[in-house]
This record gives sequence, structure tokens and C-alpha cells, in this order.
Amino acid sequence: MGRWEPNARGRLERAALELYVERGYEQTPVAEITRRAGLTERTFFRHFADKREVLFAGSGGLEELCVGAVAAAPPAATPMEAVAAALDAAAGVFEERGDLVLQRQGVIDANAELRERELIKLASLAGALADALDRRGVDAMTAQLTAETAIAVLKVAFRRWIDGGREKPLRSLLAECFDVLRSLSARGAAGTP
Amino acid sequence: MGRWEPNARGRLERAALELYVERGYEQTPVAEITRRAGLTERTFFRHFADKREVLFAGSGGLEELCVGAVAAAPPAATPMEAVAAALDAAAGVFEERGDLVLQRQGVIDANAELRERELIKLASLAGALADALDRRGVDAMTAQLTAETAIAVLKVAFRRWIDGGREKPLRSLLAECFDVLRSLSARGAAGTP
Repeated sequence: MGRWEPNARGRLERAALELYVERGYEQTPVAEITRRAGLTERTFFRHFADKREVLFAGSGGLEELCVGAVAAAPPAATPMEAVAAALDAAAGVFEERGDLVLQRQGVIDANAELRERELIKLASLAGALADALDRRGVDAMTAQLTAETAIAVLKVAFRRWIDGGREKPLRSLLAECFDVLRSLSARGAAGTP
Repeated sequence: MGRWEPNARGRLERAALELYVERGYEQTPVAEITRRAGLTERTFFRHFADKREVLFAGSGGLEELCVGAVAAAPPAATPMEAVAAALDAAAGVFEERGDLVLQRQGVIDANAELRERELIKLASLAGALADALDRRGVDAMTAQLTAETAIAVLKVAFRRWIDGGREKPLRSLLAECFDVLRSLSARGAAGTP
């Protein structure tokens, strides 16, 4: 028991998501999650700081994946190409998880606290992408702008993917967003009169 | 007393910021804020939902200002030019408030809850900008992307302005960010291989 429960983390994640969908996030105490997972509360809190965090269990891995993709981009890749490769890698994970991503997003959208936590995770991802670009020798302002713009693209494409019932692949929506962004910037963006 | 206190809102804002700077946000109960402002707690809660919200009292007005600037942009302005005008208007307000903006940001940066609230306010501003572009007849995807990109620019320029001790005007930093963004997008941003 305890420390060596096989795949405790994954079981807790699945049980939490099921219950949040069935009964709502606010109405689900940690004790219910651990009961359904067949684990103890002590095990829960060894893996997650609180019942919000269990919904964001994958965000660390996603961040690592994105950072790895930026690092692995060919030396000749532009900063924007490097982050596009990162989002493409992330899209692969989202596509693979399919329905679970949709269910999870429904839970997040219904709760203000969870939406706040999601924004914090995205801000953290932006920081990690900027650091990864910095390690490629990209200057600080360009790195930060590219990273924040990537998050902007991810937010818009992801929302369209979810709202459109995942009919269009997330990867195509990302590519479409990058295209629009390019044409937008080309058409002019004078900051001061 | 009460409902008709002259400028109660502004007095509470100033008292809260002073105390958050002097003693820290966590260490300042609402009772201390109202004592310094010479007002009652009832008055405080008539104006603000909680002691976080008093720091974001200006965000509604800022959003209105930005939305107004998008609406007032010349009909021929591109979506990116329209949001650049909005950020320019916002920059004017930040420049005017000067030291207060710097102090306020110091308080926010020191506290995770406040950083979350700040992200929520920025997300709300992005939504408002997208709606304002929508009313100019801009298609939904372009409106959302332009709005999110504007927030990306604002975040990066604002952070540089604060970290650089406000030596460079915020307006110039915004213009610089839009320039970098344009060159970045021009250099290529293929979403998929």
C-alpha cells in the first residue's frame, strides 16, 4: 500500500475527472476521488497539492515536451518556426487524448478558480518557451514576444478545436492561426502615430 | 456618512496601495485600509468584492478606454493598427500614473494570488478587444488572434518598462514590440511540417 501503489497518479487523475464531470468540481471532495480510485487521501496529497492541481497533472510533461521541441528544432529554424514545432508536438498529445481533453476543458470552463489556474499554467509555459529560445541564442525581447505569441496562437486554435467538436485537427488550426498572424503583421502594426 | 462619502473609492485605493507597499499585501486586513482611509468596512465592500479587487479598480476603465480606441480607429485601419491604437491609449494612462503603477506592480509580483487575478484581467481585456474588432466587421479568428497578440505585446512591453525603471517610454516599447513581431512573422511561421 501507499508509496508503491501501481500508477496511483493516473488512477487519481481519471477518478477526479470522472467525478468532476458527473457531479461538478465544487461538489467533489478529495475523499470521493480517493474512494473511487481505491487509494488513500495521504496518497492523493503525496501526488497533488490540492484538488485543482489534479486536473493539471499533465502540464509539467507538456511543458517539457514543448521545451524539448524548441531545443530540437534545426539550427536554421526561426524563433517562430521553433515554437510552431513545440505547439505541433503539444497538439499531438491533445489529439491522442481526444475525449479526455474535451471533458477536462468542460470542467475548467465551468469554474472561475480553474480558469485562473489554467492561465497560470499557460503563463508558465510562455516563460519556459522564452527560456528555451534564449538558450538558442535568441535575444530576450524576441524570445519573450515569440513565446507569448505562441501562447496566443495556442489559446485561439485550442478554443476553436474544442468549440468545433474536434472536427478539424488541432494541427491544422494551429497552422491556420500562424498563417493569419503572418498576414496580420504584414498588413501593418504601427505602434505609435 | 456611507453612500455619499466624497471619492471613497479613490481614497480606499490609495490607502490600500500604501499599506500593501508598507506592510505587504497578506499582512494588511481590510480594517486597516478603511482606518487609514477614514471610512467604514461597509463602504469598502460596497466598492470592492475583496482586498484583491481594490488593486484592480482601474481595470474596468482601462478596458473601456481600449475598446473605445478600437472603435474610434479610422475605418481603413487594419485590425493590428486598431489594437495598437488601444495599447497606445492605455500606455498614456500608465505613463501618467507613473510611480503608482510601479508600486502596484511590485505588490502584484510578490503574491501568487494577485498574479492570478492580473492574468484574469488581461484575459478579460483580450475578450473585450476581440469583441470590439468583431464590431468592426473583422472575422472571428482574426479578431481573437489580433486581440491575444495585442495582450502578448502589452505583457512584454509593460514588463520591460517596469524592469527598466521606466527609462524608455512605454509607447516606444510597444512600438518596438510591434516591429519585432512584424519581422518575426515575416521570417516564417509554418505551423506544420
